[in-house]
Amino acid sequence: MTFPAVTHATIEGGVSAPAGFRAAGVACGIKKSNGLDLALIVSDTPASSAAVFTTNKAVAAPVVVSRARLEASGGRSRVIVINSGCANACTGPEGHRTAEAMADAAAAAAGVDGSQALVASTGVIGVSLDRGRVTHGIVAAAKVLARDGGAAAARAIMTTDPFPKEAAVEATTPAGRFRVGGIAKGSGMIEPLMATMLAVVTTDAQIAPALLQRALTSVTDVTFNAISVDGECSTNDCVFALANGASGVAIGDGELDLFVDALRRVCESLAIGIVRGGEGATKLVTIEVTGGATDDEAKRAARAIANSPLVKTAVHGADPNWGRLVAVAGRAGVAFNLDRARVQIGDVELFAGGRPFDERAPLASEHLQGTDVTLRVDLGTGQPGAARMWTCDLSAEYVRINAEYRT
Amino acid sequence: MTFPAVTHATIEGGVSAPAGFRAAGVACGIKKSNGLDLALIVSDTPASSAAVFTTNKAVAAPVVVSRARLEASGGRSRVIVINSGCANACTGPEGHRTAEAMADAAAAAAGVDGSQALVASTGVIGVSLDRGRVTHGIVAAAKVLARDGGAAAARAIMTTDPFPKEAAVEATTPAGRFRVGGIAKGSGMIEPLMATMLAVVTTDAQIAPALLQRALTSVTDVTFNAISVDGECSTNDCVFALANGASGVAIGDGELDLFVDALRRVCESLAIGIVRGGEGATKLVTIEVTGGATDDEAKRAARAIANSPLVKTAVHGADPNWGRLVAVAGRAGVAFNLDRARVQIGDVELFAGGRPFDERAPLASEHLQGTDVTLRVDLGTGQPGAARMWTCDLSAEYVRINAEYRT
Repeated sequence: MTFPAVTHATIEGGVSAPAGFRAAGVACGIKKSNGLDLALIVSDTPASSAAVFTTNKAVAAPVVVSRARLEASGGRSRVIVINSGCANACTGPEGHRTAEAMADAAAAAAGVDGSQALVASTGVIGVSLDRGRVTHGIVAAAKVLARDGGAAAARAIMTTDPFPKEAAVEATTPAGRFRVGGIAKGSGMIEPLMATMLAVVTTDAQIAPALLQRALTSVTDVTFNAISVDGECSTNDCVFALANGASGVAIGDGELDLFVDALRRVCESLAIGIVRGGEGATKLVTIEVTGGATDDEAKRAARAIANSPLVKTAVHGADPNWGRLVAVAGRAGVAFNLDRARVQIGDVELFAGGRPFDERAPLASEHLQGTDVTLRVDLGTGQPGAARMWTCDLSAEYVRINAEYRT
Repeated sequence: MTFPAVTHATIEGGVSAPAGFRAAGVACGIKKSNGLDLALIVSDTPASSAAVFTTNKAVAAPVVVSRARLEASGGRSRVIVINSGCANACTGPEGHRTAEAMADAAAAAAGVDGSQALVASTGVIGVSLDRGRVTHGIVAAAKVLARDGGAAAARAIMTTDPFPKEAAVEATTPAGRFRVGGIAKGSGMIEPLMATMLAVVTTDAQIAPALLQRALTSVTDVTFNAISVDGECSTNDCVFALANGASGVAIGDGELDLFVDALRRVCESLAIGIVRGGEGATKLVTIEVTGGATDDEAKRAARAIANSPLVKTAVHGADPNWGRLVAVAGRAGVAFNLDRARVQIGDVELFAGGRPFDERAPLASEHLQGTDVTLRVDLGTGQPGAARMWTCDLSAEYVRINAEYRT
């Protein structure tokens, strides 16, 4: 690493904390509540850009449009527009034209080339997005773009999220300071349909598009792709990154680690915020898997645990059900040695050497009463594969939200 | 096919309906309720045997013992013993010795060689199984073995199942009649731990062990492996088959299809019974996927839909959420063409040609009000891959059962 001493400070400002970014959030009439429903984020100077898109094959129109424009610009986006209240998914050719029109309007409002705009939508699937309202909203948002507009943008991308998600850090290096900021929205079912995960991160570090993409992909893997509310993946999930270099701190291959570290801090904070705000969630559950044959196998086991309704209901009921963890690890399709596996709830070991330690269950139950819970499973292969994931508990409230929406 | 005309009639008697089988169910004191908790099934004459075991790597002692004895006998088992109330899983070497002792006691009680006994357990994980109680229970059960003992055996393998599962058919062929019968237990969380699926099928057809295994594997694939209550797979899941030839009807390669057909009818009925009795279930949901690139891909999509909490909660709330079906099919990791995909709830088409037909939602909602619901998704590849799965809805009651067990 080129910089020997780097410190990170958490700062205010979210997506507009880095120098040279302005943001806005306005109400344009898509949400019936008349709440904020359109966010605009602009870099005042040319910027590198990168994105990670949903792997869902039922992909929404704005994802198709953003992917094409990112490619057309060679990773040189400067403006991002996001509406909430309507996902513009399963809306046919007309929906595609609306997504194109949104991107064009955002580019025009920011005074940049059309290829430099990215677009995202979140909300109901299968409902047409009102083109007039969003384009008017974009013009209105452009007029109120501000250095302190990050908070409004964070609110404007919410659907049923219980609170806005913002984060920012300032990294101090011998070469100077740079900032990374971001906003995200999580798994809220707005009307009938899928949870959507959206995030925008900005930085005033100077970094080439290819390197920014590499950093974003690796960080997304251990943050936004390491969380699960209900195992679903939406038609609209996107993570966008813009880097405008306004800090003057240049990131090359040698500095990539420290940049990734700053980016990870912001994305991890946003990702954990999404889990805490999960539908019906009452607990943040950190799952740590060790002893995997590979990191990938450890991650597969962690994901199986994170998505297990039996584990999630046990956590909800503060029931120290180590047997469910053993059984889910055993069915995860990865190498697993029952005789050498270990299970901990909090710091309490409940199963090791093929035998339970049920006398410790009350201690584990005490840990599970809290709002921050840790489950640790060692797969017993003797290999160093490890992974961490975050999830939430499964409550009757989750069922109520998702079953009784229309009734 | 050798037999040109075959008819099947549903008959009474479950696992003891086929000729030459006796069964019993007794209470031996494992269940605190003093309910029936030990089942014994015996063939009066030598029989072929086959089994399908859990793929979970955290495998319970009785599974290890049964697998070894099935192999040692060359598929010539004659007696099956099953206890409920304790899974004998995660119980170390002592648990293994208890499973061996159970099998030995069952063989002795039936007067057969030790290698001809199979054993299964279901109930709490991580608790020792009382060896004295089960071996006494086996002696008691052997004394009451009867031609009409199938119903008691079906009750004795239940944990929190709301009702016993039995089925039997009689096939009439030009070569004579043969019968297939069976019992099963489903996904009930008895105490803290995993749901277990156990089934025993018997037949008086005459069939070699290898052919019986082939039939059982293929039928399990489209019945017991085509159901899902919550996507979990336990440490104890087993399906056993015994065939004693008492009917005199011989099944060779040429007759395999008609035997498979009879076996499938019994197993499908048991499998659907398991789903109807799923924890908190209020609806049986049949999922039919067509237009897959292959049958396997169609099954993968069907499984993703069956395990989706968003789909299952929507069905629970009778919400005709076609968008959730599109989105889950899109993330299932199989070929999917959004523009050609189709979604039906009951017989009501709600999405096709990339567009929704929301005006039909009330009709679909009406279908979802019933207790038997069908969801159909065509993946739009134009290929003939197809699959069917059965699941149940996800209710707040499921969460209550699994979260509040110990509280």
